[in-house]
Amino acid sequence: MTRNWLDHAEGSVLVEFGRTRVLCAASFTPGVPRWLKGQGRGWVTAEYAMLPRSTNTRSDRESVKGKIGGRTHEISRLVGRSLRAVIDLDQLGENTIVLDCDVLQADGGTRTAAITGAYVALVDAIETGRAQGAIKASATPLRDSVAAVSVGVVAGEPVLDLDYPEDSTAETDMNVVLTGDGRFIEVQGTAEGEPFDRPLLDALLDLAATGCARLTELQTAALAEPARERA
Amino acid sequence: MTRNWLDHAEGSVLVEFGRTRVLCAASFTPGVPRWLKGQGRGWVTAEYAMLPRSTNTRSDRESVKGKIGGRTHEISRLVGRSLRAVIDLDQLGENTIVLDCDVLQADGGTRTAAITGAYVALVDAIETGRAQGAIKASATPLRDSVAAVSVGVVAGEPVLDLDYPEDSTAETDMNVVLTGDGRFIEVQGTAEGEPFDRPLLDALLDLAATGCARLTELQTAALAEPARERA
Amino acid sequence: MTRNWLDHAEGSVLVEFGRTRVLCAASFTPGVPRWLKGQGRGWVTAEYAMLPRSTNTRSDRESVKGKIGGRTHEISRLVGRSLRAVIDLDQLGENTIVLDCDVLQADGGTRTAAITGAYVALVDAIETGRAQGAIKASATPLRDSVAAVSVGVVAGEPVLDLDYPEDSTAETDMNVVLTGDGRFIEVQGTAEGEPFDRPLLDALLDLAATGCARLTELQTAALAEPARERA
Amino acid sequence: MTRNWLDHAEGSVLVEFGRTRVLCAASFTPGVPRWLKGQGRGWVTAEYAMLPRSTNTRSDRESVKGKIGGRTHEISRLVGRSLRAVIDLDQLGENTIVLDCDVLQADGGTRTAAITGAYVALVDAIETGRAQGAIKASATPLRDSVAAVSVGVVAGEPVLDLDYPEDSTAETDMNVVLTGDGRFIEVQGTAEGEPFDRPLLDALLDLAATGCARLTELQTAALAEPARERA
Amino acid sequence: MTRNWLDHAEGSVLVEFGRTRVLCAASFTPGVPRWLKGQGRGWVTAEYAMLPRSTNTRSDRESVKGKIGGRTHEISRLVGRSLRAVIDLDQLGENTIVLDCDVLQADGGTRTAAITGAYVALVDAIETGRAQGAIKASATPLRDSVAAVSVGVVAGEPVLDLDYPEDSTAETDMNVVLTGDGRFIEVQGTAEGEPFDRPLLDALLDLAATGCARLTELQTAALAEPARERA
Amino acid sequence: MTRNWLDHAEGSVLVEFGRTRVLCAASFTPGVPRWLKGQGRGWVTAEYAMLPRSTNTRSDRESVKGKIGGRTHEISRLVGRSLRAVIDLDQLGENTIVLDCDVLQADGGTRTAAITGAYVALVDAIETGRAQGAIKASATPLRDSVAAVSVGVVAGEPVLDLDYPEDSTAETDMNVVLTGDGRFIEVQGTAEGEPFDRPLLDALLDLAATGCARLTELQTAALAEPARERA
Repeated sequence: MTRNWLDHAEGSVLVEFGRTRVLCAASFTPGVPRWLKGQGRGWVTAEYAMLPRSTNTRSDRESVKGKIGGRTHEISRLVGRSLRAVIDLDQLGENTIVLDCDVLQADGGTRTAAITGAYVALVDAIETGRAQGAIKASATPLRDSVAAVSVGVVAGEPVLDLDYPEDSTAETDMNVVLTGDGRFIEVQGTAEGEPFDRPLLDALLDLAATGCARLTELQTAALAEPARERA
Repeated sequence: MTRNWLDHAEGSVLVEFGRTRVLCAASFTPGVPRWLKGQGRGWVTAEYAMLPRSTNTRSDRESVKGKIGGRTHEISRLVGRSLRAVIDLDQLGENTIVLDCDVLQADGGTRTAAITGAYVALVDAIETGRAQGAIKASATPLRDSVAAVSVGVVAGEPVLDLDYPEDSTAETDMNVVLTGDGRFIEVQGTAEGEPFDRPLLDALLDLAATGCARLTELQTAALAEPARERA
Repeated sequence: MTRNWLDHAEGSVLVEFGRTRVLCAASFTPGVPRWLKGQGRGWVTAEYAMLPRSTNTRSDRESVKGKIGGRTHEISRLVGRSLRAVIDLDQLGENTIVLDCDVLQADGGTRTAAITGAYVALVDAIETGRAQGAIKASATPLRDSVAAVSVGVVAGEPVLDLDYPEDSTAETDMNVVLTGDGRFIEVQGTAEGEPFDRPLLDALLDLAATGCARLTELQTAALAEPARERA
Repeated sequence: MTRNWLDHAEGSVLVEFGRTRVLCAASFTPGVPRWLKGQGRGWVTAEYAMLPRSTNTRSDRESVKGKIGGRTHEISRLVGRSLRAVIDLDQLGENTIVLDCDVLQADGGTRTAAITGAYVALVDAIETGRAQGAIKASATPLRDSVAAVSVGVVAGEPVLDLDYPEDSTAETDMNVVLTGDGRFIEVQGTAEGEPFDRPLLDALLDLAATGCARLTELQTAALAEPARERA
Repeated sequence: MTRNWLDHAEGSVLVEFGRTRVLCAASFTPGVPRWLKGQGRGWVTAEYAMLPRSTNTRSDRESVKGKIGGRTHEISRLVGRSLRAVIDLDQLGENTIVLDCDVLQADGGTRTAAITGAYVALVDAIETGRAQGAIKASATPLRDSVAAVSVGVVAGEPVLDLDYPEDSTAETDMNVVLTGDGRFIEVQGTAEGEPFDRPLLDALLDLAATGCARLTELQTAALAEPARERA
Repeated sequence: MTRNWLDHAEGSVLVEFGRTRVLCAASFTPGVPRWLKGQGRGWVTAEYAMLPRSTNTRSDRESVKGKIGGRTHEISRLVGRSLRAVIDLDQLGENTIVLDCDVLQADGGTRTAAITGAYVALVDAIETGRAQGAIKASATPLRDSVAAVSVGVVAGEPVLDLDYPEDSTAETDMNVVLTGDGRFIEVQGTAEGEPFDRPLLDALLDLAATGCARLTELQTAALAEPARERA
């Protein structure tokens, strides 16, 4: 995770997990959308997208097609929900943070990389907002950290962090979002082939908890280092 | 569940769960989309939508807005995936079944009602296809039945089948899709408020299994009765 | 005509004419669109749509196609105009009523069923608005009732209330909208095959007047009964 | 009516009725759309549009808004239907004629001017097709001529050919499309204010018949003159 | 150049250069778009479009396709920029002028004809605004005149005012926009075939300057004549 | 310029000019779009886009807005034209190369950086196509190299390679695309403020030629080095 990979964004991280690379940029803006005005609460939202040649064969651009596909919609909503789960919007005050997660290269696990990286960019954006005086010095908008992993079943066995060849052949694909203290924010498991039974589900949830704990450590380490100076 | 509520559709069910009413129509067509041709396999897909005044206050029509929202996309994909999980597309042969799930009135649990009803319409559409000779007499496209429930946490307690007032205040909302023999096809749980811990997750999964077993019985009963003659 | 088929809408009717079924929902909202503000006048508008499997073969959803077809536009405008013709918008005050007419099953005459049913839902919505105090007790927004029929020429003979097989082979198709006191709001006649002469046109108009008078009686009867209590 | 106002189109007419100016261009192309192929029949369709500053105050372009309004759709369909009513598509052979009716300046009656002018452009396009050999010398695709007028009620009196100030205050607005031999193709009457009774409707239909007969003479005269040579 | 070809527009010109015909309409409106409010400055913008049958073979309507093509966008922006280059927006005051340039017939050079004609319509619209009192009598919004030509290389030789057959075979196509006093507003040259060297570029620029000077004289002459009275 | 920054693309370059960073990916595919089939010629096209937070303040995504803006269209077309100018499409054979130029960070000159980088990615994609046997060993699709610079006038003086603060205050902005042997492919100069005279135009063209010659050297150097192995 390279912090401040961008010079303009209030927070940014280039996440590289295996060959997957996701650029997460957090944009901090004082003020909130019209429908939230005057309530003293902030807003956090996210948009996820893939560059056309992030994948093995080129995909058409959603801007050229004129509409966003179902998968993009779904993941954008997931990322936004996951981050809001660890944010106290009242403490954020009337400020907006937009997280842009753009996949530069995809090799499995892009949505979980996006959530994990976006959290780090979010922390930096909050600090920028605080430094600008838009967030009160005494405010504590962050309630916990958040990280996500994908787990799956390959050849009958639970596996952590599928890369693309595994992902596309997995019998089950599960994305799990957890807080730093190990509680669940989101569990999304889908049987791609054979339906799975309860013991297998339990094994996957155990594996996910272990994986997220490791990511939480990486996030903590990244945030402990002094960030690259933005230009 | 009222079977053959429609005269034209090859299978149709009006599902009424509490005040929620979803009309599920299955359209059977010989032939498959172009990208599937010549492989001997069939296709099953679904579209979910809400009538503008199915809800407490009127929503704008997605056709008038000119685009489908993220939630609609998400649920349509979920319904399609859930049904495909119990279908053997090779046994279906080169035939297409489209499930239209239109919410006439919404009071919580519309997506799970849609899956549960769509299964019954799907069974009738397959029988129609068989009667027309498009599906071979010896073919067994159905591998199992499928039903879905929503469970949640209200005031700290696991609750089955949330209605809208409960749903909107639930701390956690989970949709679970199970086969008739009790295996998982899909688990989607989201912490709306407080993240949830593993024991609570386990309790929700137990409750979902009980609920789906009850729905499986209702589906079996509905399919056992002679259906209303289509006009 | 089943009044209050929906629990949420301020007025609703399920119209069943032959195998045609149209669900008409009237949404009453205090206030008017921005362009009407401050003039003391209300607004009534309508949207018509067909469910994809209301017809004999499935049609694509307009929301999925991303645009509304010409026929849908045309009928929505016709329904709105027809209802506004019997409403005194000044007496309605700054309130808006939207009529959603969704065709659940189509077998000819859906647009005229929509107008005829929408009138009944409109009456109930006005009474709801009055009960809420948004419409003054002394106000008389309704100037007359409105009903519509389709008439046509089949095998050279004028016919009332075409069902779909007749409709699709009719040489001429005419939709006529009349007030309760027998005056014309709209006359739309189209020669599908042979152009028609004046005597035939006169015969069609006579037939339409008779048919609408009968519908007016049905509307009066439906409104005379106590409506099902909304939940 | 100025024939061959355009150099490229196979038929074209600039219609000037009062201050209304509509440019009608007929494009003849051998071949038919895919859904008509191999049936030996042709196709005639029309598109109507207004330039943004054809009206008294500028309207937004439909291309910029990204969708066509209901009124435009409605009129395009009306023009197409009216012309097809006098064409024998079997005699036309597998050829397509598209009529573009673009309103350069609007002062009432643009749709009826479009129909009346489009007929003349259509005749020229058919002759071009015949000259090119795409239409057989012996074929007789034209069954009759077609013309259209708008009539209305102003201050209680039936009036022919409303200009815009009359049109916008008319109590009733009726468009009537007639064949050259005086039979009806289309009758579209709408009460803008007060509903109208049968005697008034009869008076409007009489007036329309007289008006169309006069337009038929003008069309005949225009087609009798040698057309301006196309460049 | 026929001034006041339209009756409604505050300024309008029908430009006929060879067989190319462009209708330029200037719409003057007091007030500015929201993002400019309160700054005391005006706004000038342009929209360019082609009628479907302005070309040799019919093109699909951009309104029907639901989006504007790249070429249309590009030319609209060019026309707007070119006109703003000779306008002092402060002197214009809080007024908006929209230039609609619609190509009725195309035979090369439509974008340069649009700019050259739009300038004349703009002058008339400013005078209308002044006559209405929306522009101060003492204000001098026009800083210079503007004209445009297309030049190209055909068979190795620089050529002025390409018509369509030349245009489509030109090795290089260059559009040059100049002020009345001979300075450059825009230079857009593209090698369609062989890249061009500096001496050829210099020759094209010389030719363009000569051509624009001639157009400037035509504009001056057109504006010197009394315009046709608008109805 | 970092070659092979991506693992999947057949050619890719991360261009960093000052703080501007553009990721250029070339996708090589055997075969051509339908309209080109059977002519033995290839196709090269380009798409340009900016990430939402590439700029100083966040811009809305074009995919979310549902349409591509005029500027994006314009630059995509410019990049495609510039590359095609140095490609012999006949020598390319029936193969397609799409260049995706995504701006990760913008600080002026993004379109010229895109062209300059895309050329290098294009060379690598051609070599990949040759290695795959889709391009004949003897074929010479590249006729020359291509590079682009932006020049402008700041405070009356010609300046090369404007960064954003200069760009936004420049009186004139000119993009020049040149071949490796110094001939012009494209000249696009726009007076943002004061129109410019011929001597100033000449000075800008001289400066552009110098700048492009330097970029040509950088391209040659980058292509001389062994590229990073793709994973």
